[in-house]
Amino acid sequence: MFLGSASVSFDEDIFIQGYASVVGKKEGEGPLGNLFGEVVTDPMFGGDSWEDAESQLQMKLVTAAIKDSGLKDSDIRYIFAGDLLGQLIATSFGVKNFNIPLFGLYGACSTMGEALSLGSVSLAAGCAEHVLCMTSSHFGGAEKTFRFPLDYGSQRKFSATWTVTGGGAVVLGTAGGFAKITGITTGRIVDYGYKDKENMGACMAPAAADTILRNLEDFNIAPDSYDRIITGDLGLIGQRILLDLLEEKGYSISNLHMDCGIEIFDGHTQDTHAGASGCGCSASVLCSLILKNIRDGIWKKVLFVPTGALFSPVSSNEGDSIPGIAHAVVIESECR
Amino acid sequence: MFLGSASVSFDEDIFIQGYASVVGKKEGEGPLGNLFGEVVTDPMFGGDSWEDAESQLQMKLVTAAIKDSGLKDSDIRYIFAGDLLGQLIATSFGVKNFNIPLFGLYGACSTMGEALSLGSVSLAAGCAEHVLCMTSSHFGGAEKTFRFPLDYGSQRKFSATWTVTGGGAVVLGTAGGFAKITGITTGRIVDYGYKDKENMGACMAPAAADTILRNLEDFNIAPDSYDRIITGDLGLIGQRILLDLLEEKGYSISNLHMDCGIEIFDGHTQDTHAGASGCGCSASVLCSLILKNIRDGIWKKVLFVPTGALFSPVSSNEGDSIPGIAHAVVIESECR
Repeated sequence: MFLGSASVSFDEDIFIQGYASVVGKKEGEGPLGNLFGEVVTDPMFGGDSWEDAESQLQMKLVTAAIKDSGLKDSDIRYIFAGDLLGQLIATSFGVKNFNIPLFGLYGACSTMGEALSLGSVSLAAGCAEHVLCMTSSHFGGAEKTFRFPLDYGSQRKFSATWTVTGGGAVVLGTAGGFAKITGITTGRIVDYGYKDKENMGACMAPAAADTILRNLEDFNIAPDSYDRIITGDLGLIGQRILLDLLEEKGYSISNLHMDCGIEIFDGHTQDTHAGASGCGCSASVLCSLILKNIRDGIWKKVLFVPTGALFSPVSSNEGDSIPGIAHAVVIESECR
Repeated sequence: MFLGSASVSFDEDIFIQGYASVVGKKEGEGPLGNLFGEVVTDPMFGGDSWEDAESQLQMKLVTAAIKDSGLKDSDIRYIFAGDLLGQLIATSFGVKNFNIPLFGLYGACSTMGEALSLGSVSLAAGCAEHVLCMTSSHFGGAEKTFRFPLDYGSQRKFSATWTVTGGGAVVLGTAGGFAKITGITTGRIVDYGYKDKENMGACMAPAAADTILRNLEDFNIAPDSYDRIITGDLGLIGQRILLDLLEEKGYSISNLHMDCGIEIFDGHTQDTHAGASGCGCSASVLCSLILKNIRDGIWKKVLFVPTGALFSPVSSNEGDSIPGIAHAVVIESECR
């Protein structure tokens, strides 16, 4: 096992054995609409609150990902999962009926990177044969938690992003699959002191730059070692900041950078301003476009870097900044 | 490595290399007062909000635990940490200046068990030489988040517990120390449908029973293989339920059970009703009484089982139950 300053490359085989994505109506109407595993048009997902809706979404994800991997619930040793809501209630109520040991995670919108990292580590340690990594977000629940009740009809700045209703789940295992996780770079908190909660992309971009830079330097590779470097939910403004920050350090990634928050909606027709955000943004794009392209051999190696804004209404109202964090995962195709 | 249904025993050496506890004034006046590393009498810890106070507490913990282990900040590869506040802001602002890669965790008051488990797994995988595992809670921040503003002077039921202002941090490493983590049992969510937020002990006891039972059955051992089985913060009511539930399954642990939530305060003189709670309860008792007794060779082997009530004001106000989770860690003395 190679250990860089913040990176690990695994000697062990850590396979992606199955995955699932579930999204809401608006996401289904976007450019990636027909790539998602399931589009649910009922914003309540059959539940009776925004929070319950997101738990219902997680139940669908767990069930579909385990099915896709050809396993049964009892084959999954651990679930690594989290969400954006206080005390992770979408996850608590979403996974409780599966009776699978749970490691609850919070990395804001970087949670899919954190879950895949820790899932991989648990397999590398020999602690499990199969684990499930998952996260989600819900537009209604996120607006209620972080901004204003939907009924207020608040105006949104052009720098704001739209929280994805959706999520993704990945089953990792030691036994074989169409792709491997070959390395991780774990993020530290990066805080440029920025406080605008309607410009989360700017809050997260420095953390994304830090993690990408450490990945490239730890492994001593050029950006074009990857077919794509894919951030979570920086949006249009965050993307420009990321590209500028890396350019300053001598790395140009503009020709191979992709941001899930830019891909999932059509900003011109879907009124999503700077793009999309939410844990479910990078997770649902991973479990549709990204893993499909890897499964099809179109991309051989990508750096998947979910990005999180460590924003809380409490700390923000108290005048604190919004720090960022980003966790990177190296995913390589097994198609030769 | 042995794998039971929910348990792992490590072949690798996972040492406890250092630890620290920091608590508030009330905790310092309790029965364990002179065992804590630092007692801070200012409830604000020099900060300017309850949340900031808890971040200041975490900064003290990180600094003290790294010092106790004879290491420097840059030796710590990962921090595994979390707290009770929405979006883990005590942790985000508490650890950001250390520039150490962070895995943010949420397991309610079971977080110290979760952190020690994942820290151990990362060492067993060879991903790190030293990691720091930490959690905290603050009475003021918890009351504000979960109950009522302190200024309301709310009456508390006798079944309620008092959130500990305090926390603990442990440095784990591969290189040698006075104790080892030799196994873990990872909790699943257990929900008996109980909804009383002023009786968290009852909400958590079934999860504690489930995890302890799985530990004993996975390793095929009797309870008295341990010198103590130590739960996190069940309090007096939760303890009785735990003992009854295990008795029903044929296990009597009453002579070797200890609950951190019963130990840390004197209920008669400190008006803490059913006991103490909060992530910082089990973490601070671990990093004082428990590790001292292990360091001194008084206890050779304990099962440390922090217990979490997955309570959120949002889900609770929506009529949901309060599920529980408990993560167990086997700690063995290296003193022969």
